[in-house]
Amino acid sequence: MNLKLALLPGDGIGPEVLAQAVKCLQAVEEAFGHNFVYREAVVGAIAIDKTGDPLPQSTLDLCQEADAVLFGAIGDPKFDNDPNAKVRPEHGLLKLRKELGLYANIRPVQVFPTLIDNSPLKKEIITGVDFVIYRELTGGIYFGEKKINEAGTVASDLCEYSELEIERIAHLAFKAAKNRKKRLTLVDKANVLESSRLWRKVVTKIGQSYPEVTLDFLFVDNAAMQIILNPALFDVILTENMFGDILSDEGSVIGGSIGLLASASIGENNALFEPIHGSFPQAKGKDIANPIASILSAAMLLEHFGLFEEAMLVRHSVDKSLEKGVVTPDLNNLSEYTTSQVGDFIAHTIEESD
Amino acid sequence: MNLKLALLPGDGIGPEVLAQAVKCLQAVEEAFGHNFVYREAVVGAIAIDKTGDPLPQSTLDLCQEADAVLFGAIGDPKFDNDPNAKVRPEHGLLKLRKELGLYANIRPVQVFPTLIDNSPLKKEIITGVDFVIYRELTGGIYFGEKKINEAGTVASDLCEYSELEIERIAHLAFKAAKNRKKRLTLVDKANVLESSRLWRKVVTKIGQSYPEVTLDFLFVDNAAMQIILNPALFDVILTENMFGDILSDEGSVIGGSIGLLASASIGENNALFEPIHGSFPQAKGKDIANPIASILSAAMLLEHFGLFEEAMLVRHSVDKSLEKGVVTPDLNNLSEYTTSQVGDFIAHTIEESD
Ligand SMILES: [Mg+2]
Ligand SMILES: [Mg+2]
Repeated sequence: MNLKLALLPGDGIGPEVLAQAVKCLQAVEEAFGHNFVYREAVVGAIAIDKTGDPLPQSTLDLCQEADAVLFGAIGDPKFDNDPNAKVRPEHGLLKLRKELGLYANIRPVQVFPTLIDNSPLKKEIITGVDFVIYRELTGGIYFGEKKINEAGTVASDLCEYSELEIERIAHLAFKAAKNRKKRLTLVDKANVLESSRLWRKVVTKIGQSYPEVTLDFLFVDNAAMQIILNPALFDVILTENMFGDILSDEGSVIGGSIGLLASASIGENNALFEPIHGSFPQAKGKDIANPIASILSAAMLLEHFGLFEEAMLVRHSVDKSLEKGVVTPDLNNLSEYTTSQVGDFIAHTIEESD
Repeated sequence: MNLKLALLPGDGIGPEVLAQAVKCLQAVEEAFGHNFVYREAVVGAIAIDKTGDPLPQSTLDLCQEADAVLFGAIGDPKFDNDPNAKVRPEHGLLKLRKELGLYANIRPVQVFPTLIDNSPLKKEIITGVDFVIYRELTGGIYFGEKKINEAGTVASDLCEYSELEIERIAHLAFKAAKNRKKRLTLVDKANVLESSRLWRKVVTKIGQSYPEVTLDFLFVDNAAMQIILNPALFDVILTENMFGDILSDEGSVIGGSIGLLASASIGENNALFEPIHGSFPQAKGKDIANPIASILSAAMLLEHFGLFEEAMLVRHSVDKSLEKGVVTPDLNNLSEYTTSQVGDFIAHTIEESD
């Protein structure tokens, strides 16, 4: 397969971890005979420093021309500490998501067997957990009309959804369920909310085109309980923007390895893959940052293009680095492996698999 | 203190557990020289059977004349299985909350040391957890304007709050924090929602009248994480209706003893106290239901009227029943204590405390 990939290393540890993800993609090219072309651009604080804009037009153009974007991390404390800063690094990512029309956020919740003791949940509850949350990302109450009266005494936010907004992410979620454990749970509050009843109606209708997938429903308050009590029951969770924000953050901590998790944001013509961790400025340039989340975001990229065998190999190679203890000091403070050594180990494991 | 209490036993195990709560209140009267008057009325399925209405006018009148309502449980499977049922037992409670103007729902999250192994969380995380959620109950998106267009393709719900709605529950929450660990956390999404920004503004202003209470803020997605990672950090959580629905249900499961939890709903002139568990119809009449949640709802009633010493004694007596293993079979399947024996033990412990 030929793919044009935009690389946006961003700030802090972004460049260091993204470099390891690229190593692994290059190993996949080698092992499977693919041809990926990489072009790099600035975003975030470094882009502000160079151009005054956290998302320069040239970066946006590059992303729009690419098949997908591999994103590092964003943010620099010099902006956090300046309340007068008019542009902020984070605006670069928000604007990029908007310009690329990335309407679906995909957050896998998984457990790494060697790290299971880090989980806040008991071992028997967290063992075998492997689900993925499909969160609608561009609609709902976060983007609905906001009002405040002149006296400043009454404020409101509107949660609105259209059939079309629900349909497009529902198709993505059903397709994912088809390739997984064939179970989709729609999380809503249909006993109370009109918008939730529309979600239920539209998703039920679309489910008829995916007869191999079992569809069930859960109210959001119950879902917040089940993620703690019975997380192994879930396969694919589909939900609207705000419920997805709450549940994907709740889900991210149950495995105990939040620093290793990746996410994808998908649009009609583009897609962006990134670790869920931040730019960790204190570790910048020290070659100690953990590259696994970035490498797993590359695995999600491969899956997005249907390269399931390739993605599986990347995941297995990550597992091997964890099993063999080839990890950065955050996972084992006795370990002396650097960011690039971990990346090398995983890339070599991919190459040697044949 | 003289109190007029309305007793609404309701359905299923409601009458059995409520009877134990009344035993304990009578023991408190005895031990402290109070004078409580009890009057009973029907609500729920039993009220439908007798009058056709899940909340007959005579029941509502009784509740409005009372200082507080002690509620059992509601619900009967014969209505759940009848999709054509026009009246449902649950409507009795919803209507009662509305008619009494109960705008604040209070849900303590606590851990019982003898039952800590039931928690889905690891012992070191759940030990010492003791917080309470103040959830606004009559405003926000659950009660805002609902719309659907004629084609049925666009639906919306409005989340609206006024200063007044925020102020009255904020005062309750600050007063509670003053009597506890003096920390109040407002949970909102003020980085995105206009209504959350109004909450933040109003709660900050009211906080100036409670200088002994430390006020901090947490976004709802972060709160969903912290309830799992660091639940012992919380004291009083204050939040709007839907966030409170999600977080109080999430909070209810972390202790592992959801069947033992109570709640209060507070209005301008009235208050209602109940276990959070349901009517458990399978156990009805068998004298096996666990009365502890109902007894703890009576402790919340005492606290509501400022009878802190009395409430503490009820709680200690409940702890003693757990420590001594005087519990119903749901907590220990080798136990042969009945509902009424557990109630007797706790009531006697209260009486003997002098
Ligand atoms: Mg979030
Ligand atoms: Mg609920």
